[in-house]
Amino acid sequence: MDRRYAVILGNLGNTKDRFCGSYKESPATADMLQQAAHIPHVSGIELVGTWDISPANLMEMKLALADLNLTCVSVIPDLFGDSRYWKGAYTSTQPEVRRHAIDYTKQMCDIARELSCEIVNLWPGQDGYDYNLTADYAAQRDWMCEAVTELATTYPDLRFALEYKPKEPRTHSTLARMADSLLLAQETGCSNVGVCIDTGHAFVAGETVGESIVLARRAGNRLFHMHFNDNHGTWDDDMIVGTVHTVRYLEILYWLDRSGYSGWFSMDQYPYREDAAGAIGESILWLRRFDEILETHRDEIDVLVAADDAVRTSRFLREVLLR
Amino acid sequence: MDRRYAVILGNLGNTKDRFCGSYKESPATADMLQQAAHIPHVSGIELVGTWDISPANLMEMKLALADLNLTCVSVIPDLFGDSRYWKGAYTSTQPEVRRHAIDYTKQMCDIARELSCEIVNLWPGQDGYDYNLTADYAAQRDWMCEAVTELATTYPDLRFALEYKPKEPRTHSTLARMADSLLLAQETGCSNVGVCIDTGHAFVAGETVGESIVLARRAGNRLFHMHFNDNHGTWDDDMIVGTVHTVRYLEILYWLDRSGYSGWFSMDQYPYREDAAGAIGESILWLRRFDEILETHRDEIDVLVAADDAVRTSRFLREVLLR
Amino acid sequence: MDRRYAVILGNLGNTKDRFCGSYKESPATADMLQQAAHIPHVSGIELVGTWDISPANLMEMKLALADLNLTCVSVIPDLFGDSRYWKGAYTSTQPEVRRHAIDYTKQMCDIARELSCEIVNLWPGQDGYDYNLTADYAAQRDWMCEAVTELATTYPDLRFALEYKPKEPRTHSTLARMADSLLLAQETGCSNVGVCIDTGHAFVAGETVGESIVLARRAGNRLFHMHFNDNHGTWDDDMIVGTVHTVRYLEILYWLDRSGYSGWFSMDQYPYREDAAGAIGESILWLRRFDEILETHRDEIDVLVAADDAVRTSRFLREVLLR
Amino acid sequence: MDRRYAVILGNLGNTKDRFCGSYKESPATADMLQQAAHIPHVSGIELVGTWDISPANLMEMKLALADLNLTCVSVIPDLFGDSRYWKGAYTSTQPEVRRHAIDYTKQMCDIARELSCEIVNLWPGQDGYDYNLTADYAAQRDWMCEAVTELATTYPDLRFALEYKPKEPRTHSTLARMADSLLLAQETGCSNVGVCIDTGHAFVAGETVGESIVLARRAGNRLFHMHFNDNHGTWDDDMIVGTVHTVRYLEILYWLDRSGYSGWFSMDQYPYREDAAGAIGESILWLRRFDEILETHRDEIDVLVAADDAVRTSRFLREVLLR
Repeated sequence: MDRRYAVILGNLGNTKDRFCGSYKESPATADMLQQAAHIPHVSGIELVGTWDISPANLMEMKLALADLNLTCVSVIPDLFGDSRYWKGAYTSTQPEVRRHAIDYTKQMCDIARELSCEIVNLWPGQDGYDYNLTADYAAQRDWMCEAVTELATTYPDLRFALEYKPKEPRTHSTLARMADSLLLAQETGCSNVGVCIDTGHAFVAGETVGESIVLARRAGNRLFHMHFNDNHGTWDDDMIVGTVHTVRYLEILYWLDRSGYSGWFSMDQYPYREDAAGAIGESILWLRRFDEILETHRDEIDVLVAADDAVRTSRFLREVLLR
Repeated sequence: MDRRYAVILGNLGNTKDRFCGSYKESPATADMLQQAAHIPHVSGIELVGTWDISPANLMEMKLALADLNLTCVSVIPDLFGDSRYWKGAYTSTQPEVRRHAIDYTKQMCDIARELSCEIVNLWPGQDGYDYNLTADYAAQRDWMCEAVTELATTYPDLRFALEYKPKEPRTHSTLARMADSLLLAQETGCSNVGVCIDTGHAFVAGETVGESIVLARRAGNRLFHMHFNDNHGTWDDDMIVGTVHTVRYLEILYWLDRSGYSGWFSMDQYPYREDAAGAIGESILWLRRFDEILETHRDEIDVLVAADDAVRTSRFLREVLLR
Repeated sequence: MDRRYAVILGNLGNTKDRFCGSYKESPATADMLQQAAHIPHVSGIELVGTWDISPANLMEMKLALADLNLTCVSVIPDLFGDSRYWKGAYTSTQPEVRRHAIDYTKQMCDIARELSCEIVNLWPGQDGYDYNLTADYAAQRDWMCEAVTELATTYPDLRFALEYKPKEPRTHSTLARMADSLLLAQETGCSNVGVCIDTGHAFVAGETVGESIVLARRAGNRLFHMHFNDNHGTWDDDMIVGTVHTVRYLEILYWLDRSGYSGWFSMDQYPYREDAAGAIGESILWLRRFDEILETHRDEIDVLVAADDAVRTSRFLREVLLR
Repeated sequence: MDRRYAVILGNLGNTKDRFCGSYKESPATADMLQQAAHIPHVSGIELVGTWDISPANLMEMKLALADLNLTCVSVIPDLFGDSRYWKGAYTSTQPEVRRHAIDYTKQMCDIARELSCEIVNLWPGQDGYDYNLTADYAAQRDWMCEAVTELATTYPDLRFALEYKPKEPRTHSTLARMADSLLLAQETGCSNVGVCIDTGHAFVAGETVGESIVLARRAGNRLFHMHFNDNHGTWDDDMIVGTVHTVRYLEILYWLDRSGYSGWFSMDQYPYREDAAGAIGESILWLRRFDEILETHRDEIDVLVAADDAVRTSRFLREVLLR
């Protein structure tokens, strides 16, 4: 196994929700980096723009990462926490807000280059709508396409991973599902626009992640990045991998390999009330255990997915999972 | 308003589920046609292959439709009720089953031509999977694409509407959502492959239908057909339009017009325990009432969808809906 | 472990849905019994009224069960497949239908007595409603309470297990959730009225089954019966235990023991496209494997449920499940 | 109509979520009171403990309310925003946290008395669990019951309304549904323990609110309070009444009257990106319009809920709603 594991730095920080402003302490960035570096098997870091990384601390961060032997895996521009974007960033009805969002993202692209980080992970969380008959869906898609195209053509050396999510913080996101996002990626005409699957987002969307991986593969090999977590099925609970679903992860790993995915395996959790490093470390260990099973039984799984026999699949899973 | 309304003939027949084999009587086809023709505003009929139409009754049906002044709006090949397709039709792992499904569909295409019916509505209900690790998603998509491509190239004068649905009868369908179906339509390279939106299927998929209409428009003007019904949100309850959701239908009609949709408005319900003609007639009357509101207030809605102001939209809806 | 396993006989028969009238052959009752008896670890059978058991074949069935060394675990009156009850059985607005449903159930109670079967499992599938503003919820609950009370007082030696389910075949069931059913059981004033948990029904209801078991325990020790299956979370897919969820079953078994449950473990699946005996056998083997894990680690789980530490629970699960 | 309308004061304040710490300005309490008093038809206010009301500002608040001619309708102790309760308040595994939560609530009860406010609305948002096998459901229910019993017996002149909600901020709440909460209310043996229905919480729980009202009525007339809002069905979106669902609200008002509810109609929204006073005012106007329809057509609805005829109900709704 040559999987490379990463974590989004903010996972190690404070947690909050709309009711409680702070469940935990807010550690310093340096402390979070230290913690991340000490999670077994972690060698990559994703940095959220503004929160973790900005022109002001770029050199400092570069040194810190080098010191800790951490690779910056992706930069995630903050398109969700800045109240300027409260009614959309790339799809705001206000041209000056859209402009600001694109320019800000470019700043983050420059930072990514500086960090030798190839992936810019775009999660435009505020782009969407809440109520029926309050949004022009055609214009929104135009604007989203224009923004992503401008970014992708300006930075042809970077790869832009669209992280889709059906809802939250808006009741409906513009990039809601795998196939919607692929259509948009294709519309840009840029081969450096692809997708990031967050497993939990896909669960909430009702997708079978194995199948979403196949869709991305067929639409021009556009799976650029992976975020891992688990949930109870209807909301982005951002839990430890394997604590709700089990079989799904084995299937996901199988299809990642079959589609030739060679990117990072990044943990994206929101450990509201858990020890963060512990929760992230657990997810990696679950994934590694699933990988061991996959390594040993890949040929049998090849046969099972061709066989279309649920009883046989059940027997296999029972025997190899619950040995 | 120049909407044209249709109904799927079988809506007027018997109803059943996995527990009860028959809630109603099974009327003769001629009686169902009579009933359909008498539902106010109905001028079109959709016929399910084998159940309603076959080479054996083709001439008889042609005459009956002419007598009743009904247009055949679409032919729906039976890819869901034939136990031969219990584990898939176009995506069966058995080559001879896939061949059978394609050949059978061609027979239905010939019938459509004979009835001067331009639309073949493909709802491949049995194509999908139930359990993880029992299906080869890549092969399934290859097979689906091959089948649809063969059909579309063999019958360039017909238009093939892919009716997507996230689940039922399989726990997961191959054509599950709007954007998945558009990707497949594009893969065929045929401009006569498009989609049919069943409003209830889209609700279960978590889609905003107005937005799905926009997606189809952008992907090559591929919205070919519309099926109307309502549900409680998590299952294809196939209920009377307007009895659960209200605002959504006004939005759907608005976006159909904005996208230039000129096809049929077909009712697709499953009135388990209701008077079928009454239930279908109700849906049409709800839609006509929504259309009257739309006609009177289209300019205001243009303003609202650009305004991004939920309070203003609420005020409008309250005042025009609940006058 | 002294678990006793059973199966609902009809699980071994034909399967169908509203689209396809028959996915399989319909084996003879005698053949289904033979098959059931040969599923490893099965020693009990549940019989559906009318379908499997009636005054006409009672003696024959008694002999057949004795021959096969099978215990009749419960009788399930057919309150779901008889079109007479299409708009409700115990809660029909028609008094004569309600009377019929009660009288028919009494006939089934007599049969249960004759078979020395203590449990009558009531799944009033047709009791509920489909549309808002079409049902008198107060009257429905009165009628349901009257029916169950009449049954429970007429047959004080039998135990009536109310099997709740949120929906299907109605869009909303009268007995939808654990706590609703407990309230009704308490209203009857009869200690021989309790509940049956179908794990899949509870999943769809959004319940944590371990917690539902605790509720039943607190409300007068009213957990009388258990039906096992799995699903994808939003519909009663009636799948093989363990193929979607894993951790939940371990938790369920733990809480069954903590609440002192000593009833049967009955499999209730609907193997549309699977070998039925194989699918049922698989569920039992998954449950037995979970039980082995539970036996070995019960004390650790006692500590975990008191500890409120998700990381620690994750580590335990990963280590004992995926050894 | 003699409905009395109220609003939760905090609805007029800042909004935030886990991504964005502040979408709006935070107005001063006095300004929010002013705004509330000017929303048409509002004559009552709900105050959240600590945030809006505390021993320190009690006299000031009393005067302010009198000045504005506002009645304090309920006090809502802050059991959700205090990080001390991050892993539960009444059901924390830490005895000293449970003690603190009860003592704090008593402080709020004293304040309620002082304000001549009869209702203490308990929303124990942090009481629940996130992961399977991390909580002792039996102990949690004991602790919840002990806390509520201590409060209800200490303050027999107050009425305690349990506000249930299936999830958020925990993935699972201890008081998740109507019937669960009624069971707990009954367990306390106190007639001054009842429930508050938040319509949106009930929607997410899959409940038909009309039916939930009937359940509360039957279980000792325990419906004490009502919170109104709307959502898209799977999450507590806290939107303007009527913007998603329509028919449901007419049904809710009908059943409130049939059950003899005479409490307040309080708006509980979370207008993330909306003008708060506008959004709240809209909900009241929707409700008042539904009430006008109900006033005019109550007898027809009486007939419809007895008639069990969806086509007839649809015709009525179409004609009276979309006149």
